[in-house]
Amino acid sequence: MTTLAQIEAMDAADALAGFRAHFHLPAGLVYLDGNSLGPLPIRAQARIAQVTAREWGDGLINSWETAGWIDAPARIGDKIARLIGAGKGEVLVADSTSINLFKCLAAALAMQPGRTVMLSESGNFPTDLYMMQGLAGLTGARCEVVQPDRLLASLDASVAVLTLTHVNYRSAAIHDLAAITRAAHDAGALVAWDLSHSVGAVPVDLESAGVDFAVGCGYKFLNGGPGAPAFIYVARRHQAAAPSVLSGWLGHREPFAFDETYQPDPGIGRFRCGTPPILSLLALEEGVDLLLEADQAALRGKQSALSRLLIELIGSHCEGMGFTLASPHEDELRGGHVSIRHAHGFAIMQALKARGVIGDFRGPDILRFGIAPLYLRFGDIYEAVTRLVRVMREEAWRRPEFNRRASVT
Amino acid sequence: MTTLAQIEAMDAADALAGFRAHFHLPAGLVYLDGNSLGPLPIRAQARIAQVTAREWGDGLINSWETAGWIDAPARIGDKIARLIGAGKGEVLVADSTSINLFKCLAAALAMQPGRTVMLSESGNFPTDLYMMQGLAGLTGARCEVVQPDRLLASLDASVAVLTLTHVNYRSAAIHDLAAITRAAHDAGALVAWDLSHSVGAVPVDLESAGVDFAVGCGYKFLNGGPGAPAFIYVARRHQAAAPSVLSGWLGHREPFAFDETYQPDPGIGRFRCGTPPILSLLALEEGVDLLLEADQAALRGKQSALSRLLIELIGSHCEGMGFTLASPHEDELRGGHVSIRHAHGFAIMQALKARGVIGDFRGPDILRFGIAPLYLRFGDIYEAVTRLVRVMREEAWRRPEFNRRASVT
Repeated sequence: MTTLAQIEAMDAADALAGFRAHFHLPAGLVYLDGNSLGPLPIRAQARIAQVTAREWGDGLINSWETAGWIDAPARIGDKIARLIGAGKGEVLVADSTSINLFKCLAAALAMQPGRTVMLSESGNFPTDLYMMQGLAGLTGARCEVVQPDRLLASLDASVAVLTLTHVNYRSAAIHDLAAITRAAHDAGALVAWDLSHSVGAVPVDLESAGVDFAVGCGYKFLNGGPGAPAFIYVARRHQAAAPSVLSGWLGHREPFAFDETYQPDPGIGRFRCGTPPILSLLALEEGVDLLLEADQAALRGKQSALSRLLIELIGSHCEGMGFTLASPHEDELRGGHVSIRHAHGFAIMQALKARGVIGDFRGPDILRFGIAPLYLRFGDIYEAVTRLVRVMREEAWRRPEFNRRASVT
Repeated sequence: MTTLAQIEAMDAADALAGFRAHFHLPAGLVYLDGNSLGPLPIRAQARIAQVTAREWGDGLINSWETAGWIDAPARIGDKIARLIGAGKGEVLVADSTSINLFKCLAAALAMQPGRTVMLSESGNFPTDLYMMQGLAGLTGARCEVVQPDRLLASLDASVAVLTLTHVNYRSAAIHDLAAITRAAHDAGALVAWDLSHSVGAVPVDLESAGVDFAVGCGYKFLNGGPGAPAFIYVARRHQAAAPSVLSGWLGHREPFAFDETYQPDPGIGRFRCGTPPILSLLALEEGVDLLLEADQAALRGKQSALSRLLIELIGSHCEGMGFTLASPHEDELRGGHVSIRHAHGFAIMQALKARGVIGDFRGPDILRFGIAPLYLRFGDIYEAVTRLVRVMREEAWRRPEFNRRASVT
């Protein structure tokens, strides 16, 4: 059993420890929800103030050029590309994950005449399934949502595109992105990966896996701020043939020519649509920049160690209290969070939040703890489990106020 | 000819003059581009700082509930509703104008089985035409873009939806929204109005005109900040039957139930899609709140007076210099900006900007001056024309640096 002294030694030896000071983390709080909303990078606060006062306030309309607003979606996209094994000009920041997935799926359908099925799995993040359903209603394409163990067998000649989330939002189980992509390609299907729980959390190499399309979220492990814009990846080899069905003016090859006929940008730029929300967009850049300063392999190593420690401490300190692990045991199969089942999971998480440990709950019985190695300490994990033990011993979770289901997040 | 003394008297008598102090306006600058990007409301600066430090920084994930983030799209939508003659629960802030128009057109097509045409006019803002084209490519519906004088004659039994921009982005000419809506309805078509250049600028009464759908922009006369989210209006009578094809999780009737099948919110909420960009969204609220504090009829009156003054002064001070009015003469037919043609319009606008008068240029020959009565003074109009006269007398616009076409805005 790992002792407190050993945990303190782990923090003392942590080469990434210095990054914590770059975040605003309220005193006394153990924040294990960075997979829902990453905390505020101190620099983002300064950047937002600067964008507001100097760029919007003083620069006004000129800031589209002078402050580089117009190029920001591609510039930040190129930075995110470095986190997911993509090349320059393959990633763009725009809109939301849901809308970007719609763009990918619609392009894939158009590129696969004669194939009409969008395939996914039960247990995928709901918005991905919903966007498929909306697109199906619009186009006559068909959604096929199968049990995970039926996925590969369902890859037949009717499948235009397979879409999956790389790291499962509930269990944190990681799909084998390269193998599944290969299987889809072997069946003549394209793939669209949702990297929302992957980017900034687990290694992704889109290029070596030959991935066609991907999307992901800006406000989780990228620490881009609430509702930060999302990103879209389209492999360079597909860009000229992938139609942009949400063909807004900023995706036009010459938006300021004000042509009446849409002529798409030749590259990733065609997946821009309307005008991007600049304040939210530039806050995201600070989160991405900070993440890029860290060694990605070291981050993943520390994340695995933090996760192992959490699993070990719950196992030892909470033995017999009714907790079971809902995430894979093996580090290499587990993404950026640790999920634990408990029959009273909802109330326990509420009680834990009241004690200053912020995780979240996913029905029916999952306590989800985000493990972000950029700002978490091994001591935080110890503290979280200590407070969890107290909640359980005192049966604090039985109180009525912790059993009211009003949570929206 | 209006004299400077008279102009000073107009400012002294202006009941709205106090609003100017609520904006950050750089000293010496005459800002006539609020129809492209409204200036920074002082309160927005404080609000953004508060949202960043207190809500994101301290409140973290809890702010979705405790700071009211989750309700903000509907709350701000209800406020915008008051500016366009809509009811509570008919307007939502979400995504961009382009994407919201896509939602409206797709819903309208689905509601009109047997009708396959989306009708619009040449000269409409390009993104609206582009979004029609994208949707047509996806669904097999057909775009018909006709000359303005052919619009009413084109309203036949094939037309599912007519979409127009209420105030033309080049000429500022106002369409007769009520009459055209009536004509479309008489032909069995639905209407989707783009209010981007109307909201906060000219009176709009959607309810009395029986409008079906509308969209509009947050960063022009609403002063919501660069790329502020847009809004969507769907008449209450249509909401239950209007499918939301961009069916993201926040449009689900119970997003946090994480169902695998999309069940739309019963009301306007179904037109939410992904997670909204909170920093940009809440900045918009300050702009809207400020506008709502002003008497809307007084605003429109002052705007007409400012516009008349600009037209008069250019007519008298720039006589024989080659300028002609590209906007309607009549106040009631002219929206929130004044457009002036000149063969050297591009270079003249560049030279004028260098003298601290910010307007914009729309090819091939239009100088466009946004007239925002909330913060402009009659003296600003006088100053703008004075500087324009100087540019013309000195032929400053002939300089090479003013003839390089690099402008993106």
